[in-house]
Amino acid sequence: METGAKEDLGSAEKTSACTCDNKPCSCQKADINYAFLHSTDLLPASNGEITTLSFLQDVMNILLPYVVKSFDRSTKVIDFHYPNELLQEYNWELADQPQTLEEILLNCRTTLKYAIKTGHPRYFNQLSTGLDMVGLAADWLTSTANTNMFTYEIAPVFVLLEYVTLRKMREMIGWPGGCGDGIFSPGGAISNMYAMLIARFKMFPEVKEKGMAAIPRLVAFTSEHSHFSVKKGAAALGIGTDSVILIRCDERGKIIPSDLERRIIEAKQKGFVPFLVSATAGTTVYGAFDPLLAIADICKKYKIWMHVDAAWGGGLLMSRKHKWKLNGVERANSVTWNPHKMMGVPLQCSALLVREEGLMQSCNQMHASYLFQQDKHYDLSYDTGDKALQCGRHVDVFKLWLMWRAKGTTGFEAQIDKCLELAEYLYNKIKNREGYEMVFDGKPQHTNVCFWYIPPSLRSMEDNEERMNHLLKVAPMIKARMMEYGTTMVSYQPLGDKVNFFRMVISNPAATHQDIDFLTEEIERLGQDL
Amino acid sequence: METGAKEDLGSAEKTSACTCDNKPCSCQKADINYAFLHSTDLLPASNGEITTLSFLQDVMNILLPYVVKSFDRSTKVIDFHYPNELLQEYNWELADQPQTLEEILLNCRTTLKYAIKTGHPRYFNQLSTGLDMVGLAADWLTSTANTNMFTYEIAPVFVLLEYVTLRKMREMIGWPGGCGDGIFSPGGAISNMYAMLIARFKMFPEVKEKGMAAIPRLVAFTSEHSHFSVKKGAAALGIGTDSVILIRCDERGKIIPSDLERRIIEAKQKGFVPFLVSATAGTTVYGAFDPLLAIADICKKYKIWMHVDAAWGGGLLMSRKHKWKLNGVERANSVTWNPHKMMGVPLQCSALLVREEGLMQSCNQMHASYLFQQDKHYDLSYDTGDKALQCGRHVDVFKLWLMWRAKGTTGFEAQIDKCLELAEYLYNKIKNREGYEMVFDGKPQHTNVCFWYIPPSLRSMEDNEERMNHLLKVAPMIKARMMEYGTTMVSYQPLGDKVNFFRMVISNPAATHQDIDFLTEEIERLGQDL
Repeated sequence: METGAKEDLGSAEKTSACTCDNKPCSCQKADINYAFLHSTDLLPASNGEITTLSFLQDVMNILLPYVVKSFDRSTKVIDFHYPNELLQEYNWELADQPQTLEEILLNCRTTLKYAIKTGHPRYFNQLSTGLDMVGLAADWLTSTANTNMFTYEIAPVFVLLEYVTLRKMREMIGWPGGCGDGIFSPGGAISNMYAMLIARFKMFPEVKEKGMAAIPRLVAFTSEHSHFSVKKGAAALGIGTDSVILIRCDERGKIIPSDLERRIIEAKQKGFVPFLVSATAGTTVYGAFDPLLAIADICKKYKIWMHVDAAWGGGLLMSRKHKWKLNGVERANSVTWNPHKMMGVPLQCSALLVREEGLMQSCNQMHASYLFQQDKHYDLSYDTGDKALQCGRHVDVFKLWLMWRAKGTTGFEAQIDKCLELAEYLYNKIKNREGYEMVFDGKPQHTNVCFWYIPPSLRSMEDNEERMNHLLKVAPMIKARMMEYGTTMVSYQPLGDKVNFFRMVISNPAATHQDIDFLTEEIERLGQDL
Repeated sequence: METGAKEDLGSAEKTSACTCDNKPCSCQKADINYAFLHSTDLLPASNGEITTLSFLQDVMNILLPYVVKSFDRSTKVIDFHYPNELLQEYNWELADQPQTLEEILLNCRTTLKYAIKTGHPRYFNQLSTGLDMVGLAADWLTSTANTNMFTYEIAPVFVLLEYVTLRKMREMIGWPGGCGDGIFSPGGAISNMYAMLIARFKMFPEVKEKGMAAIPRLVAFTSEHSHFSVKKGAAALGIGTDSVILIRCDERGKIIPSDLERRIIEAKQKGFVPFLVSATAGTTVYGAFDPLLAIADICKKYKIWMHVDAAWGGGLLMSRKHKWKLNGVERANSVTWNPHKMMGVPLQCSALLVREEGLMQSCNQMHASYLFQQDKHYDLSYDTGDKALQCGRHVDVFKLWLMWRAKGTTGFEAQIDKCLELAEYLYNKIKNREGYEMVFDGKPQHTNVCFWYIPPSLRSMEDNEERMNHLLKVAPMIKARMMEYGTTMVSYQPLGDKVNFFRMVISNPAATHQDIDFLTEEIERLGQDL
């Protein structure tokens, strides 16, 4: 970006659109001048129809090239600028007076100019990557329908699709006939919190009215590699993070069942009440799958709610080749599964599935009489809003449903198998390559490949503290350079006693072997002088 | 809908699009035949660009007419069908095999055919109504950008816009220089839960680690007219619904401060610790504003966190004419404000604003090292994700920001003033009209107008139980007929000892005096024989 005076976001090129008969169109016949128009000229303004159609079409004319560019390897993943640069370069402030529609279109362009292309084939930074065309179309439709998931009354189709889709997901989990319950929630952390909330309610229903003061001290168990949302949930629910007991993992990041059992016994001896084990199917960093069958046995033995956080790993249930990694998930009492991760559904789309029907409703309902009137003229079992902690709830189901229709289960399977194959390709490529060290041995179970890049200057150094102090700076520096060049993005982090390493994940169906090759070349290019 | 055999959602008309050079276009030159194409033919497929642009444009060609029809008074608000009808009429199931893009486009059409037109000028059913064209465009852009609010790294512009917008909202609340903190959350219920969580943490920070077992028994206070989310939050947080003390309201639905003080003293005498008063600025049913200044004095006196649930009433801060109704909000410790209600921002858009900076972060942070690396190359204060209970967080800010740019504060003001004027018009129209009884006396403070329609058969009856038993069926029957005709929608509910009455609310800038007249005519038409 050029430095200089603050540029107003809406000061540049003139935008115009067509008024031909063929509506909507993009003929560029151009006699609508947005420089003289404001939002008050759009619908519901009388005679606002033509202006509205032109304006929305012109927004689309900004979005569509961005979509196409997202897949173009010759474009940057990110045009990185520091926060103070972006703040200083443009005027983003909110004012008393309106801007013109011309300025609004420019605001859209500028926003996209600095956006991360999360659909770019070389964007590997998060568990959610990619841009699915049918998912995108479905999300646009969802925005257009602009409704809420309270009741059948105001979201008839979406409520039915939630019903159909959750049942199908429960079938994939292996619950007979897809029976059970569930909800789409705003993300995996909230889904995990729901699980904890319901597990507590199942054991001590009086907690709803009387609070934690009325029940014994609860403890939950999860692995030291599990997602931080288990602790966040415990803090929020008044259980406290100290009551989340972290169980040791093996070198691959899988929970050690004998350690779990030992800690359960220990907790009981102290007079605590174990109420939840949160197993992980696909840990965030290593992509590890906890041994669910062994955990199920322990949960059964000690009568503890078994939750499986399959936010990241749940997608593998779509794959005949890989679903064995979740063997035992069918014995869970609840499962978190985020289609917005491995299945590539646009953000946000997270489901909590519960084996026992009706429990969510009993746990969360407050019978708001202005929403859940009992004297309506239709079947009230479709008014599912009172299951939720939320009152208003965004429609997250439609994009998953439409993608599932478009791909079929087999399409998701192909997409997921391909991502796993690419991860294996990367693993095979670097496991013995000079300049790389794997964080753990063996073929990845998910698409997580964790490794250090060792710059030439460190390769002959002894494995001592000095080397460690160097190594921990390597990944952050390469990452910073990647972002400044904008060529690719991959995440890094320390974990336990392991200093900063790269965590490669692949969930983008647009990625190819060449993109994996590009990543390693780029790491080597940017890291060789460190 | 005709009855008959199940229709496949994707069996009817053939859809096609153009391949001209003018991309995106809608020329209908028509040689793409979607009947032979699948999602695998779209990007990232090689040579997928033209098919993708045509497909997305054709989705738009479905959405744009729906947008226009939403504002057309000659179309129905809803084409109502019972759940079993919709389930039987179409095949909504998810299968192994993919559908063609032709079928996918039909799925979109069918979904919209049965959707509620929430932007229709005669849709008065919820607090969130209307369809704002700039908000819609912004939501489409948000879907296209498809990112997450964790960090500046992956959402640079959106993170900055959240910063700018929250600061502006705090300025409107009246906090000096817009200082403080905040977050966009998935709805008002979660925002209120955040307030409760932070208030508890502020008083007893040890609760985060040690849970409710380590702290005294807490009690919260809110009015009997407040939103049910206060109780939902208390249940979830382990406080318990019994510890939410409901304070009496006057006949207009406003909290009675002397009763609040009396109950606080009483609770303290019992050894409980009052930690939160949740005042309401705009109750759900009556639209009442609690006397915030008196409440602030009480909270100050007893050192209690003052939260204001202005989910519904917050919009009035944009109006110089009406903002006095929230006098005292500037003394709150936290405020819930849902721009997706009175400001007409598409769903979902809810903010929690907190006066003390840093508290949200301390309360909720878990320092996930794979997201919030401390050795990044930019200013880490923009990595705001650890403030949230959520891990992934949907981008909800952009539509509000873009609408604010397009309207200016004065545009929101005009829109809100108009809705309030319409509510007064309705009130003046029906307050003395034969066949209507107001639920409470006096001019509405918000756009809520609560009334009974009294059919001719009940008008001369004595006010006894028999009449009551009749009257309570009137609103549900009129509502059911409204939905079956699809002409308009308005909500009803009982409240306390008051049987079912209509609650009219106006938040749709598309509504006019004629639409208000239509509503009363329709109620009279559909209710006169009851």
